[in-house]
Amino acid sequence: MPIRVGVIGAGIMGADHIRNLSTTIGGAVVTFVADLDAGRAAAAAPRAARITTDPSELINSSEVDAVVVASHDSTHAGLVLECFEAMTPVLCEKPLAPTLLESLEVVAADADIVAATGASLLSLGFMRRFDPGYVALRQSVQDRAQGEPLMVHCTSRNAAAGPGTTSESAITNSAIHELDIIPWLLDSRIMEVSWQAGRSSRHAEGGLQDPAFMMLRTADGTVTTLELFLNAQYGYTTSCEVVSELGTTGLKDSALLGVRQDGISRTGIPEDWRPRFADAYRLQLQAWISALAEGEQPPLAGAQDGLNAAIVAQAMIQSLHSDGASTKVSYS
Amino acid sequence: MPIRVGVIGAGIMGADHIRNLSTTIGGAVVTFVADLDAGRAAAAAPRAARITTDPSELINSSEVDAVVVASHDSTHAGLVLECFEAMTPVLCEKPLAPTLLESLEVVAADADIVAATGASLLSLGFMRRFDPGYVALRQSVQDRAQGEPLMVHCTSRNAAAGPGTTSESAITNSAIHELDIIPWLLDSRIMEVSWQAGRSSRHAEGGLQDPAFMMLRTADGTVTTLELFLNAQYGYTTSCEVVSELGTTGLKDSALLGVRQDGISRTGIPEDWRPRFADAYRLQLQAWISALAEGEQPPLAGAQDGLNAAIVAQAMIQSLHSDGASTKVSYS
Amino acid sequence: MPIRVGVIGAGIMGADHIRNLSTTIGGAVVTFVADLDAGRAAAAAPRAARITTDPSELINSSEVDAVVVASHDSTHAGLVLECFEAMTPVLCEKPLAPTLLESLEVVAADADIVAATGASLLSLGFMRRFDPGYVALRQSVQDRAQGEPLMVHCTSRNAAAGPGTTSESAITNSAIHELDIIPWLLDSRIMEVSWQAGRSSRHAEGGLQDPAFMMLRTADGTVTTLELFLNAQYGYTTSCEVVSELGTTGLKDSALLGVRQDGISRTGIPEDWRPRFADAYRLQLQAWISALAEGEQPPLAGAQDGLNAAIVAQAMIQSLHSDGASTKVSYS
Amino acid sequence: MPIRVGVIGAGIMGADHIRNLSTTIGGAVVTFVADLDAGRAAAAAPRAARITTDPSELINSSEVDAVVVASHDSTHAGLVLECFEAMTPVLCEKPLAPTLLESLEVVAADADIVAATGASLLSLGFMRRFDPGYVALRQSVQDRAQGEPLMVHCTSRNAAAGPGTTSESAITNSAIHELDIIPWLLDSRIMEVSWQAGRSSRHAEGGLQDPAFMMLRTADGTVTTLELFLNAQYGYTTSCEVVSELGTTGLKDSALLGVRQDGISRTGIPEDWRPRFADAYRLQLQAWISALAEGEQPPLAGAQDGLNAAIVAQAMIQSLHSDGASTKVSYS
Repeated sequence: MPIRVGVIGAGIMGADHIRNLSTTIGGAVVTFVADLDAGRAAAAAPRAARITTDPSELINSSEVDAVVVASHDSTHAGLVLECFEAMTPVLCEKPLAPTLLESLEVVAADADIVAATGASLLSLGFMRRFDPGYVALRQSVQDRAQGEPLMVHCTSRNAAAGPGTTSESAITNSAIHELDIIPWLLDSRIMEVSWQAGRSSRHAEGGLQDPAFMMLRTADGTVTTLELFLNAQYGYTTSCEVVSELGTTGLKDSALLGVRQDGISRTGIPEDWRPRFADAYRLQLQAWISALAEGEQPPLAGAQDGLNAAIVAQAMIQSLHSDGASTKVSYS
Repeated sequence: MPIRVGVIGAGIMGADHIRNLSTTIGGAVVTFVADLDAGRAAAAAPRAARITTDPSELINSSEVDAVVVASHDSTHAGLVLECFEAMTPVLCEKPLAPTLLESLEVVAADADIVAATGASLLSLGFMRRFDPGYVALRQSVQDRAQGEPLMVHCTSRNAAAGPGTTSESAITNSAIHELDIIPWLLDSRIMEVSWQAGRSSRHAEGGLQDPAFMMLRTADGTVTTLELFLNAQYGYTTSCEVVSELGTTGLKDSALLGVRQDGISRTGIPEDWRPRFADAYRLQLQAWISALAEGEQPPLAGAQDGLNAAIVAQAMIQSLHSDGASTKVSYS
Repeated sequence: MPIRVGVIGAGIMGADHIRNLSTTIGGAVVTFVADLDAGRAAAAAPRAARITTDPSELINSSEVDAVVVASHDSTHAGLVLECFEAMTPVLCEKPLAPTLLESLEVVAADADIVAATGASLLSLGFMRRFDPGYVALRQSVQDRAQGEPLMVHCTSRNAAAGPGTTSESAITNSAIHELDIIPWLLDSRIMEVSWQAGRSSRHAEGGLQDPAFMMLRTADGTVTTLELFLNAQYGYTTSCEVVSELGTTGLKDSALLGVRQDGISRTGIPEDWRPRFADAYRLQLQAWISALAEGEQPPLAGAQDGLNAAIVAQAMIQSLHSDGASTKVSYS
Repeated sequence: MPIRVGVIGAGIMGADHIRNLSTTIGGAVVTFVADLDAGRAAAAAPRAARITTDPSELINSSEVDAVVVASHDSTHAGLVLECFEAMTPVLCEKPLAPTLLESLEVVAADADIVAATGASLLSLGFMRRFDPGYVALRQSVQDRAQGEPLMVHCTSRNAAAGPGTTSESAITNSAIHELDIIPWLLDSRIMEVSWQAGRSSRHAEGGLQDPAFMMLRTADGTVTTLELFLNAQYGYTTSCEVVSELGTTGLKDSALLGVRQDGISRTGIPEDWRPRFADAYRLQLQAWISALAEGEQPPLAGAQDGLNAAIVAQAMIQSLHSDGASTKVSYS
């Protein structure tokens, strides 16, 4: 029998998840969709699915085996805790919560459930962990194909920042992906961070410092650099190059077609993160559903990963507020 | 309810289809697997599926809504006709049949069904039609983004030819993909072909001419060239570049990682066609299942496409046997 | 003492040679420039150089040690023969002559001089032989780094054909470069050729078939393909890929800068052949001057190479006039 | 008449300069070579050139119009000052001097000559300023083709550090190229620097921190990052990407050939800086010689550029000695 999934939030991400669960994932069926906007829920939901404006109704429905939370960030922690009460597996979009306090609350509740049942109900949507490129890069690091990693260079660029983005939210919403992926990639926790202002683009509004430049030092001594540029205009790209003792390994930009016209040779660049990470979202959902079907712990990021990323983000914000001072990360 | 699929043939391709249908395709479940080797069927089948050594049992089972034929080429036509009798939709791996005569028989039976029911039961596994690169290339041609296409250059290279490959079977089994994809790409039938021997590799055995060079002229006047090299040793690649009035558009080789080590900068090349076309196989199966679920005609290649490719292949073999003479293709 | 060079022809190519000889070549000085248009000669000549409208005056001047012929194709053979009479080394731009008859005459005169003096006075400007890419490609073939070469694929594309270009002159003026470079690359003479019309671009005027597709078979059995497209619009590129028993080696397009902007990642394409082959022209001139300074035979193409290319071009034109029939090349 | 050049130092760089001046530069002749090792001088010198073990003899020879200083760093300042006394134009390899004090002395002497004669005699061999890639990148920045530059990312990697390299000498000898090129590229002085240790490679000997990571802030607010890795093992590469308001522009790695073999697609990487910057050295020498021939001020870096780079290098070393503290650069 397929896993019956309820999806909370029918915005861009929620609708993508519904489409994936309905057409490109084996063993799942979307039975329930919740959104404050009933029309939006109806537009995104499959024909046979129920819709509601009340997420609690969905979470507690006997027709839902598992829940995807893709609603506003501010609702994440509360909905996850409701799923815990219903003992329903939940895949929550990042971030776990907008505040450290809420994240800690979720982690504590998750720990109680693990203690009681031996398994966690919570999976966190750090989808880059399922991107084939990042997966291959991590494998290469783990194999020490080029010896010890020494330095990592990342860039993360969007065409345009969302309205109201601040230098702080750029960290908690965008850089958060690297704050999760780097410890995962290197198998080493981030111990120290610093944040540097670059010259800011005229396209950065409301005091946003953009691009920003960040440095992370993991426990293994490796230094990771990150240029985060949310108003890069040209499109959406992420890069990650690991510099090791015997060579370098980095993500390749992929493109289906190469074109020569008008004096240039060109390939396309994605407009935003969704085409870039379409495979990652699909494979993440598939891994989640397949594990649930097998009764196994899903191999996605978990509550502690979400908390760790949030803790590092707070340290980064502290560096930002301290004129770029190098800032230790405390996990306790 | 998911489409219940029976898979005939549990070899490399069949096992891949079973894995895809079970884990990366929405709305399908594999309920039955047939293989002459019961152990191989059992190894490839999901736990809940039945197995048999008798494909007819599978085709006529009430637990099977649709059939995938991935058994030996020589069995294709017969099994497809059995599916027709059972009025069961069938996805048959290419080729439709090893002989023109059998292909014609299938096409005639298919036409009878279409005449009687308004729809075809047969889909043919020319999976390149679902490869995102070929799809984007076709879209570019259809949009006339660079004006009229004038010439197309293809290469198709394998690491090593299978045992017993002949210059003729290289056409019917390997070049057949281009013989299908070029008319699909250009929306124009192949009217004339020629086959040229190159200097043959020492790795080509048993009189196989390898590489071979072929030319196709479509009704629109476009000349397509194809280098087919089955013992290319270095790995598996296909290329396709369309030269148009305002520029060129071609497939890009994709690679997840770029590596610099030991004085070279490198990317990996697939060992065989399966990693290269993994997405194409998945998307083709998904399109087939989704159409069946919606009660629509699947958008895969059909009987006539299979026949057309077989007719062109025969003309190419005739050119081969005529010292490379340019040979007209007759479809009537 | 520097070699004192007289340059005949102060058009685009002649002016380039003068600039190279004056500023990027060691051991040379341009002392004399001849052009039918005295103003053009004066504009191109260095301050200290003499100018004339009479090439014979230049050839026979006591201030000229060596002559570069960069005037109209129709004048090449006559001027080269004058240089022979003056016993002056000459670097003649390709082609040696527009007709086979004249080419034969030059080759005969050259042979007489070689017989008498042991050295040839004539160097022919097939500059691709000095392009670092073609040189490296030839080295790779000679080293058999990938075993025996089996097939070669070339494309040669210009933005727009010159006025009055015919299908025949496209062979004698443009394809001539591949007709020279392939035997040089493979160390094997071209024995058979054929010419195929593609669908012609609307930008091709006056009955010119463009693009055209040619095949060359060398004595070693290797098949070389050439797409020649003079109205490719997008810019100037040449490609050459050698397919060998263990892999492929091909020229890389080079570009100084990679740019990401407006949703695309791009590199520039040269407008015409001069930036593409600027290094080749420079290195060819340097090799010529250095050899003259050392009293050695210059390592450039010679009279026989020019004749051979002309003979193959004639066979290709014969194929063109015979509906693409495969045509043997006779060198005797 | 060609410029008669005397070359001091016949080591790797000196021998390269002699070869360039003799064979690929117009208007120059090497008439004198000095080296402490007379045999090395003789081996590197052209046949007609004199040799000596006494650089002063060369500088003061009536057969020398201009001097190239390619001897040990410790001799640079003294030899340049001798050239000043002889009123002979001199091209000095970088660095101007190993100490700030000596650099200041040279700058003062240079200023006296400029005051007296209106022109400087000193050119400094920051050859990257003549690399076609860096030149095109600078042009792009100056044209503001992508609006204002905001951030620059550089990497500079060697296969193996020379013996005795320290973290300090890595700055003054290797990073010095970026310390010169960045103000030249952005047309803005470096005002603040910091130095960060990465995890050090096991191939780094004697306490050398390698790779190191540096940040430069120019007066325009742009932040430049530099990874300097002298034991990168894989070969020699430099990268430079300018991130601007509308996009990015970066140097492309160039390679003559692309090869597919043994399951990989590859291009070659230079072993050291000489093939990478061969064109830059040639073009720099050519620009120097051409300017001398025309009686113009050579367009190479000058004394003040050398001093500025040395001042920034000292600030960088101060940051290194201050645990990576951000350090202001004072030019007065």
